[in-house]
Amino acid sequence: MNTDIKEYLSSQRVKIDALLVDVLKELSGVTPTSLFQPMSYSLLLPGKRLRPMLAMASCHCLGGQEADMGLLACALEMVHTYSLIQDDLPCMDDDDYRRGQLTCHKVFGEAQALLASDALLTEGLRLLTKLPVPLDIRYQLMDEILGSLGVSGMIGGQSIDVKGLDAPTEEDMKSLHARKTGALLCSSVRAGAMFAKATPSQLEALTKYGHSFGLAFQVMDDILDVTSSLDVLGKIPSGDRRKGKKTFVDLLGIENAKMYAENLIQQAILSLQPLGASAKTLWELALFVLRK
Amino acid sequence: MNTDIKEYLSSQRVKIDALLVDVLKELSGVTPTSLFQPMSYSLLLPGKRLRPMLAMASCHCLGGQEADMGLLACALEMVHTYSLIQDDLPCMDDDDYRRGQLTCHKVFGEAQALLASDALLTEGLRLLTKLPVPLDIRYQLMDEILGSLGVSGMIGGQSIDVKGLDAPTEEDMKSLHARKTGALLCSSVRAGAMFAKATPSQLEALTKYGHSFGLAFQVMDDILDVTSSLDVLGKIPSGDRRKGKKTFVDLLGIENAKMYAENLIQQAILSLQPLGASAKTLWELALFVLRK
Repeated sequence: MNTDIKEYLSSQRVKIDALLVDVLKELSGVTPTSLFQPMSYSLLLPGKRLRPMLAMASCHCLGGQEADMGLLACALEMVHTYSLIQDDLPCMDDDDYRRGQLTCHKVFGEAQALLASDALLTEGLRLLTKLPVPLDIRYQLMDEILGSLGVSGMIGGQSIDVKGLDAPTEEDMKSLHARKTGALLCSSVRAGAMFAKATPSQLEALTKYGHSFGLAFQVMDDILDVTSSLDVLGKIPSGDRRKGKKTFVDLLGIENAKMYAENLIQQAILSLQPLGASAKTLWELALFVLRK
Repeated sequence: MNTDIKEYLSSQRVKIDALLVDVLKELSGVTPTSLFQPMSYSLLLPGKRLRPMLAMASCHCLGGQEADMGLLACALEMVHTYSLIQDDLPCMDDDDYRRGQLTCHKVFGEAQALLASDALLTEGLRLLTKLPVPLDIRYQLMDEILGSLGVSGMIGGQSIDVKGLDAPTEEDMKSLHARKTGALLCSSVRAGAMFAKATPSQLEALTKYGHSFGLAFQVMDDILDVTSSLDVLGKIPSGDRRKGKKTFVDLLGIENAKMYAENLIQQAILSLQPLGASAKTLWELALFVLRK
């Protein structure tokens, strides 16, 4: 990865973290301490801020006002954090570490962690009602993000994953992860585009990008889960394998899984062609997934 | 309670149940079975459907088109059911029975119950983006309901309740329950009014009604918790006392708690005065709380 993009990502991360702190400050006055503490703990754990970054890069690539989309960026990170807190709960993956730190329920107990996840979802969505765009676009965004979180998106995928697929085919795995992880990643790209008043063909190109990106992200996550260490990953690796869940690595073997991810990222980058040079950051973000 | 209102409530309940079945039918095509089953189980447990009824009565009282508000009615019951499923979880109240039946997690396991609660919240909110009213009113409704669910509403109240109040005063208890139970009840009344394009003074009167109604409801709930049986209540009574939570009965004694509830219902009914005879159903619903 070249230095430019590394610096760019790092400066974007600082910007997004500052926006999240602002949102938390707004909430602190009306939130009981017992709820505010686990909310801010989980939201401010060091993260890649990939979903806000995708939205911002997508908006920027269409000439939109990236500077105005702070609340949208925060909303995406908040609803993502809701899903992380719940994923880690004892009744789900029962993980003790996340992003190199103790998980929310290990620090604050299950009940307050669950309520904090609910609050991040609800208050994240609430930010969407306050975006500085016309009402019809605000509604389009609300519908987009709720759709990616609902029964045909993240929650549906998570339910299939919890139930477990007995002998999944590649298609089963793709469909599962398109819902569980891919939907919100793809919606982040789409949301940035909608914010920038994308034309239908621009939105179509970016949707293809988001779809390939989301799947590649999951394949790489499966690869890292078997090749990485606690230090690098921030959580105990091989978690999915420990829990008997089938991964892309189980299905394809590690080398083929890597090739598959590379292939998906190539597809993602190809999808950007109609958007020209302004899509450079999205292009770099896709490569970033392979090298994360 | 007179026969007319009993029949009215019963026919409204049938209507609302049919609407909920319609919404579930819509969702069934895109929802994995592992998620659809706990969602429909909990949503269709026999309930009073009080929140949809309040919204419908409030809309009707202002001459609004009650027939058009099916999706709003369903959304309110869905977000309410989300809170019930989570309240019953082992990490919260750890209840085995709800509405006379086994709780969701007892039947489907904790993970799928939690996901079903998330799905009911998310898909409930999604219905609000589809309401047959102008965008600005849809926006107002989304903001209202998200507000009642968020950190200064239900989730905030629940967090305070879970943490526990050491030596609560009447004010502490009022504030806790105004958030935990009262906020969504009051918002149901307000949502019906907004749907009917209420004037500011109409909305103010109905907000006062909703506020008193919500608190009276909780006081009566506390009373029933010590005086009722599993048969009547549909759950094991004295749950709150078993868990060492302070109730209005602890604070005031049972007779004074009853007087307090009656007083609140009187206030609720008084608030309806500016709305004249068309508020009859809201008036009857308030009396229904005392006699439930």
